[in-house]
Amino acid sequence: MRVFNFSAGPATLPEEVLQQAADEMLDWHGSGMGVMEMSHRGQEFMSIHAQALADLRELLAVPQSHRILFLQGGGIGENAIVPLNLFGEKPRADFVVTGVWSQKSQKEALKYGASHIAATGQTANGFTHVPPSPAWQLSADPAYVHLCTNETINGVEMFELPEVGGVPLVVDASSHILSRPMDLSKCGVLYAGAQKNIGMAGVTIVIVREDLLDRALPICPSAFLWKTVAENNSMFNTPPTYAIYIAGLVFQWLKRQGGLMAIAARNAEKAKLLYDAIDAGSFYINKVEHAFRSRMNVPFFLADETRNEDFLAGAKARGLVQLKGHKAVGGMRASIYNAMPLEGVKALVDYMKEFEARHA
Amino acid sequence: MRVFNFSAGPATLPEEVLQQAADEMLDWHGSGMGVMEMSHRGQEFMSIHAQALADLRELLAVPQSHRILFLQGGGIGENAIVPLNLFGEKPRADFVVTGVWSQKSQKEALKYGASHIAATGQTANGFTHVPPSPAWQLSADPAYVHLCTNETINGVEMFELPEVGGVPLVVDASSHILSRPMDLSKCGVLYAGAQKNIGMAGVTIVIVREDLLDRALPICPSAFLWKTVAENNSMFNTPPTYAIYIAGLVFQWLKRQGGLMAIAARNAEKAKLLYDAIDAGSFYINKVEHAFRSRMNVPFFLADETRNEDFLAGAKARGLVQLKGHKAVGGMRASIYNAMPLEGVKALVDYMKEFEARHA
Repeated sequence: MRVFNFSAGPATLPEEVLQQAADEMLDWHGSGMGVMEMSHRGQEFMSIHAQALADLRELLAVPQSHRILFLQGGGIGENAIVPLNLFGEKPRADFVVTGVWSQKSQKEALKYGASHIAATGQTANGFTHVPPSPAWQLSADPAYVHLCTNETINGVEMFELPEVGGVPLVVDASSHILSRPMDLSKCGVLYAGAQKNIGMAGVTIVIVREDLLDRALPICPSAFLWKTVAENNSMFNTPPTYAIYIAGLVFQWLKRQGGLMAIAARNAEKAKLLYDAIDAGSFYINKVEHAFRSRMNVPFFLADETRNEDFLAGAKARGLVQLKGHKAVGGMRASIYNAMPLEGVKALVDYMKEFEARHA
Repeated sequence: MRVFNFSAGPATLPEEVLQQAADEMLDWHGSGMGVMEMSHRGQEFMSIHAQALADLRELLAVPQSHRILFLQGGGIGENAIVPLNLFGEKPRADFVVTGVWSQKSQKEALKYGASHIAATGQTANGFTHVPPSPAWQLSADPAYVHLCTNETINGVEMFELPEVGGVPLVVDASSHILSRPMDLSKCGVLYAGAQKNIGMAGVTIVIVREDLLDRALPICPSAFLWKTVAENNSMFNTPPTYAIYIAGLVFQWLKRQGGLMAIAARNAEKAKLLYDAIDAGSFYINKVEHAFRSRMNVPFFLADETRNEDFLAGAKARGLVQLKGHKAVGGMRASIYNAMPLEGVKALVDYMKEFEARHA
């Protein structure tokens, strides 16, 4: 019996992806070995790697001007790896702070140069919105402007990428990548940890415009130097092969779902269902401005927080797990990534209504 | 039909480990989710993580003075991460160069300070030995002395750890960890990528003496700062959860094999069988001095190298794969890690004799 798992990441994966991985565990396509056991330089894994790259490029419509790299270290790793790769010419960047994750990015960059807060979405109610880009206080000539386009903890999503003159945009898309189409031509760099919409923890996708490959600080570790990684097609060091394989299976699954337009429509439907349930009365609360409400991570509070433990226990009894909010904000959080079926959200909404009726 | 896979890494894994992983893919222990899908902070994964740590500590007899960390980036990542963590007080280290891997480590450290070659095992025949430690030209007061105790490409293994006064030893044990007991109390730091004897690519084991956690350069990325990783029990950033799970299954398998004394005896038997076949005539050649011949990676050459392609094709036809040597040295290489059964080595030796008989 599978549960509905609302974890923010690592997160639920499509059952058919897991089934395929299980079926191929001891013998991939008659090769006599499992994917974990394959030399990364052997023809079997090379074909898996090439297919994953091609499928991701197709799904996200990655322009030919951009390279796709598979790295390690996740989003927190990239918080250092980005300035290490881009501070070579100008050791300063601007940050739009819209939640806990962009705040972390801004702080880590201080290790390598100036890290300027161009705008913040923080209010007395926490992080509730993305400040409009004309109001951003950009500095004179930064190496880049950094955005986190979905704040996993605060549930704030940025649906449009701004224009910031010729300055490269660096986008942390960890928790919404592949949930909807994006205009990658507006990004200098896009990065994402895999453990939300891509697959398992342990691989980081970095999509970087080729002209940005030459701006690294000399202290950048070779394993994380995008230029070196790009020149070696992500095989300068041994890549996380199995994580790339699982990502590839998820890409194939996404294509079978109809691609990003189709999945975006389903995600919008799931999110509407859940926010409507929250907004239906005063029993549940979400303070994020409607235009910026995340379609991936839905934080909410019970108006009476003494009922939190009851709510979570009742949910668990119905097979609805990992609904506890992040410790930084408390309350509840339902992460409803691509792989969360509509039925899971319906089951959650039914439970929320039932719990409310019982306690109102 | 499973092949015998002699890949140097990623490498063959125990069939029963893969079978268990396949069986648990969609539902781990009745939790209703697979391990890939688990929040790293949930009780299910926390128990997997704790068990893996405890089993590794028991298997390797890690002293209480040392912490075990799970990181990302592999051995090549550590080439930078080690000096970033240890050059804070004294930005200089000594390197004993015994092959391609220690050479890479020595070069990468130059990014962060002085990197002194204390000894080299290079000869006209390539890397053939470990120079005796009394002959090492150690510098006055280095932050550490770095060794690679098994050179995967060159097939040179260091079976005894030297005494180097009070200077911390940093040991890259990537390709022999868990193949035999080691005296960890002699190591300041031991690190190993997982993709040889531990499991799948994507997790790096770092075992570090506690007093060395406070020597980092301020530019060390937080995700790779051992002190931060240790304080957060390897959960400062999302760890590569599935890779840790697979490592844990391998640790359990090793315990069922009787632990490191038992596996060391089997490894010695496998290696003897293969080296005896090489040494039996002049058809095959290995130039590494006998005392330093690796029990994990056995490189060898055909005296007549025009037969290389024939040899490889015939091997493949018998289900003996990944025998081609690393491009840096050419020839052949058979990696015979813990998970390579004796039957695999016997099959290889039988084939080598047959091939020799056919062409001699």
